[in-house]
Amino acid sequence: MNDNIGRGKWALILGGSSGLGLATAIKLARSGYSIVVVHRDRKTDMPAIEARFQSIRDEGVQFFNFNADAVNSQSRKDIIDQISQLPGPDGKVSVLIHSIAKGHLKPMVSDKTATLDVSDLQLTINAMALSLYDWTKDLYSKNLFSKDTRIVSFTSEGNTKALPYYAAVSAAKVALEAITRSIALEFALKGIRANCVQAGVTDTASFNMIPNSDKIKEAAIRRNPNRRLTEPMDVANVVYLLCREEARWITGTIIKADGGESLL
Amino acid sequence: MNDNIGRGKWALILGGSSGLGLATAIKLARSGYSIVVVHRDRKTDMPAIEARFQSIRDEGVQFFNFNADAVNSQSRKDIIDQISQLPGPDGKVSVLIHSIAKGHLKPMVSDKTATLDVSDLQLTINAMALSLYDWTKDLYSKNLFSKDTRIVSFTSEGNTKALPYYAAVSAAKVALEAITRSIALEFALKGIRANCVQAGVTDTASFNMIPNSDKIKEAAIRRNPNRRLTEPMDVANVVYLLCREEARWITGTIIKADGGESLL
Amino acid sequence: MNDNIGRGKWALILGGSSGLGLATAIKLARSGYSIVVVHRDRKTDMPAIEARFQSIRDEGVQFFNFNADAVNSQSRKDIIDQISQLPGPDGKVSVLIHSIAKGHLKPMVSDKTATLDVSDLQLTINAMALSLYDWTKDLYSKNLFSKDTRIVSFTSEGNTKALPYYAAVSAAKVALEAITRSIALEFALKGIRANCVQAGVTDTASFNMIPNSDKIKEAAIRRNPNRRLTEPMDVANVVYLLCREEARWITGTIIKADGGESLL
Amino acid sequence: MNDNIGRGKWALILGGSSGLGLATAIKLARSGYSIVVVHRDRKTDMPAIEARFQSIRDEGVQFFNFNADAVNSQSRKDIIDQISQLPGPDGKVSVLIHSIAKGHLKPMVSDKTATLDVSDLQLTINAMALSLYDWTKDLYSKNLFSKDTRIVSFTSEGNTKALPYYAAVSAAKVALEAITRSIALEFALKGIRANCVQAGVTDTASFNMIPNSDKIKEAAIRRNPNRRLTEPMDVANVVYLLCREEARWITGTIIKADGGESLL
Repeated sequence: MNDNIGRGKWALILGGSSGLGLATAIKLARSGYSIVVVHRDRKTDMPAIEARFQSIRDEGVQFFNFNADAVNSQSRKDIIDQISQLPGPDGKVSVLIHSIAKGHLKPMVSDKTATLDVSDLQLTINAMALSLYDWTKDLYSKNLFSKDTRIVSFTSEGNTKALPYYAAVSAAKVALEAITRSIALEFALKGIRANCVQAGVTDTASFNMIPNSDKIKEAAIRRNPNRRLTEPMDVANVVYLLCREEARWITGTIIKADGGESLL
Repeated sequence: MNDNIGRGKWALILGGSSGLGLATAIKLARSGYSIVVVHRDRKTDMPAIEARFQSIRDEGVQFFNFNADAVNSQSRKDIIDQISQLPGPDGKVSVLIHSIAKGHLKPMVSDKTATLDVSDLQLTINAMALSLYDWTKDLYSKNLFSKDTRIVSFTSEGNTKALPYYAAVSAAKVALEAITRSIALEFALKGIRANCVQAGVTDTASFNMIPNSDKIKEAAIRRNPNRRLTEPMDVANVVYLLCREEARWITGTIIKADGGESLL
Repeated sequence: MNDNIGRGKWALILGGSSGLGLATAIKLARSGYSIVVVHRDRKTDMPAIEARFQSIRDEGVQFFNFNADAVNSQSRKDIIDQISQLPGPDGKVSVLIHSIAKGHLKPMVSDKTATLDVSDLQLTINAMALSLYDWTKDLYSKNLFSKDTRIVSFTSEGNTKALPYYAAVSAAKVALEAITRSIALEFALKGIRANCVQAGVTDTASFNMIPNSDKIKEAAIRRNPNRRLTEPMDVANVVYLLCREEARWITGTIIKADGGESLL
Repeated sequence: MNDNIGRGKWALILGGSSGLGLATAIKLARSGYSIVVVHRDRKTDMPAIEARFQSIRDEGVQFFNFNADAVNSQSRKDIIDQISQLPGPDGKVSVLIHSIAKGHLKPMVSDKTATLDVSDLQLTINAMALSLYDWTKDLYSKNLFSKDTRIVSFTSEGNTKALPYYAAVSAAKVALEAITRSIALEFALKGIRANCVQAGVTDTASFNMIPNSDKIKEAAIRRNPNRRLTEPMDVANVVYLLCREEARWITGTIIKADGGESLL
């Protein structure tokens, strides 16, 4: 069902070459959005990634990608300069997706392995939370948001739970949510709606970097009332819903897309 | 935009002659759903209500209404008997909306007015919360739910806040949410998704029964980052999103449709 | 450490012959409170219970017990009549503890066993939630609360989680919490503070009635960061803290006493 | 009531020369704790502060203070070196209080005033959240915590609300809470309990730096069910409760000390 809600609109996806970001890019392209992806990948991985990007172009929409570090200030400024001349009815960003997963997974206490220090927390919070504000602020100050803009970022059950190795990511996720609430409040009259989607355990490259990820996935399948893991497209579908006209009264919230996993 | 996601499907709306229930009926009819409304209205109000129902029929969908007390067991059984023979591809209920607002608004302490007692709490909880389970259980046991069913009910900020006069409704709303979580868990593998939508302050007949509703509405407009009250269609739009295919991984949650009102 | 914070004060404990209620009675007696326990036990169990009650008397405080159904209106009225003549400086109730665990544990869906119906929900909500309001209202209207009164009741992680068999208790717990918030609000200027304590998995008679309670207990020990179950005295200790002068600014809250169990 | 629960124990208070930190120092000294305060004050303010410190000494406990920046790494290391030789039965820290309020209060959007940027967020999060982990980690690695240690820090309703000017503090507060949950989990078996106390609106120097703080205080008095602001000693009292033996099963939680203010 290609419903074309995105025709003539642009979605900018930070972290769009894999996982939740890529699934979102595909789903939005199927709905007619032209897509800009910022991603950070090695040259050796690019052939596989190019194939995914081609599948986005195959939806008949415009597509650009920037292989650059979305957390780096200069890269951000360069990219924003370039996308200030997007083609189209208004050439503005209607959807901003933040899917940057870059952080440190270390225990606070351990005799065996390196433990978390504050620089790990800083790096993780910068990448996974504060960068959302940097992009929002710069795009806004350059007048690059459309009159009706949706910002969506991704959180996890680490927002209320403490998990071994996950302290830095937990702190980053709650900071991301707080920033989202402030954006929702302070940019409301500028036409911006900002929300987080809380995915269940999803079999992505980032997730698999967590120690014991296999055991966590097994436990998640047993725990999930629907007896399966969350798939990237489950989450992308919810992002899509938040981009629709009917979602314009939803802002500053956290929406769970987990098949009920967090219920038990 | 009539996207016809509801073509060949039925939505059963408890409390569908005004407010959030009516707006939902209209929105779903515009999307192709055939509609059954259960409502409780006086004869003298029916001409005005018939006009609203006609606007639903005018969307080109099938429509039935039952003027009966949805909280009464015998009425429920009678209605379920009658809708066990709905026309259509499967003749089943794909969407169940619970919009029953019937409760007591009394203070716990007062020298001037009657105070809340436990029978008020019971009546309010029965009507606004437990009736959702009665309908769900009976429809399920009669095999009247479709393979992919969405249940949506309405909650409010009274789920975390205490407001004067609102004790019984607060208790009912949190009970409704808990029952929704249990339905989401226990009926997951039966194809049912159950969620609550938390509306901001909305100018409906039920809301206006709260003492000082005018002041509450004024305060809500000042407080809302979007500087207006929630409108019934804002909420109906979110129900619509929850009925879409893309929402099938959302279950057991509470989704705020308040324009950010609860942020401050 | 008998610190005598309760000297000259009375604590009324609903459900005080076992579990959290009994542990609270013992802890408060050790701190000098005189104790009234309402409990519901069979004659054959009374010798064992009398021994526990004797240990309360042995703390050197006054003690009365009523073997009656605290949920029954007539019993409540009779008991309140009798405690309207408590000895002591003011003869009033300074602490009201609600530890009534009486409910139905049934699944919503099952081919094998009886399923939950609305009357089960009603009975459970009446006993585990609404009875708190009945006692509060009647004691207040008879002017039996002291000028500084603490009301404490018990909730569980079922307030946010859905567990098989636990739907009715979940609904009751959230209703109890909502009623507690309303009491905290509406009775604030009458000198009443009302809070809930959320215990971790505790090895009590009520807990052991949950199907698969053994497995749940094993899982709780593994999950708890402190690697043991919650003990009744862990929870009673927190109730004691809420009765101290220093807790008078805590009201309308839920305090977890679970050794961190709900963190993961 | 000097109950001497702190006799022979040390409390280390970061930010202890005013507000919540100072009130906590006084309350704990009254309970027999010896006190180390780290504070950051101008020379001109020291006479007034010295008088407060004298009132702590007057409780008959040992007292040291360090006028240094608790957020600075070198200062932290220097102070920890010095307190590694505290007198007393074990010379260890039994209570660590984090009361560092140092952040930027700026709007995200404004035509009139400087707006928040990411470096403001970083500074605020570092000072108000990450520094808790730095102190915890260093004290732990130097074996300076006692076998039963309580860590308490201060949060606010900004943890769920978005307020103008408050975005950086909100992000810091939720990060602080997440770090507290991780400390509670990961240090549980080392004998550490970590909690946050959520104060209502309190008339402190830090609070008065928020734009429109007068209006916020007026609104808080009207809103609070107890019709007054939170006082520093209300909050210090709750910290005291968390230091008692009876609180040892409370960890990883947020406890509201607001007189019910957040209920409406």
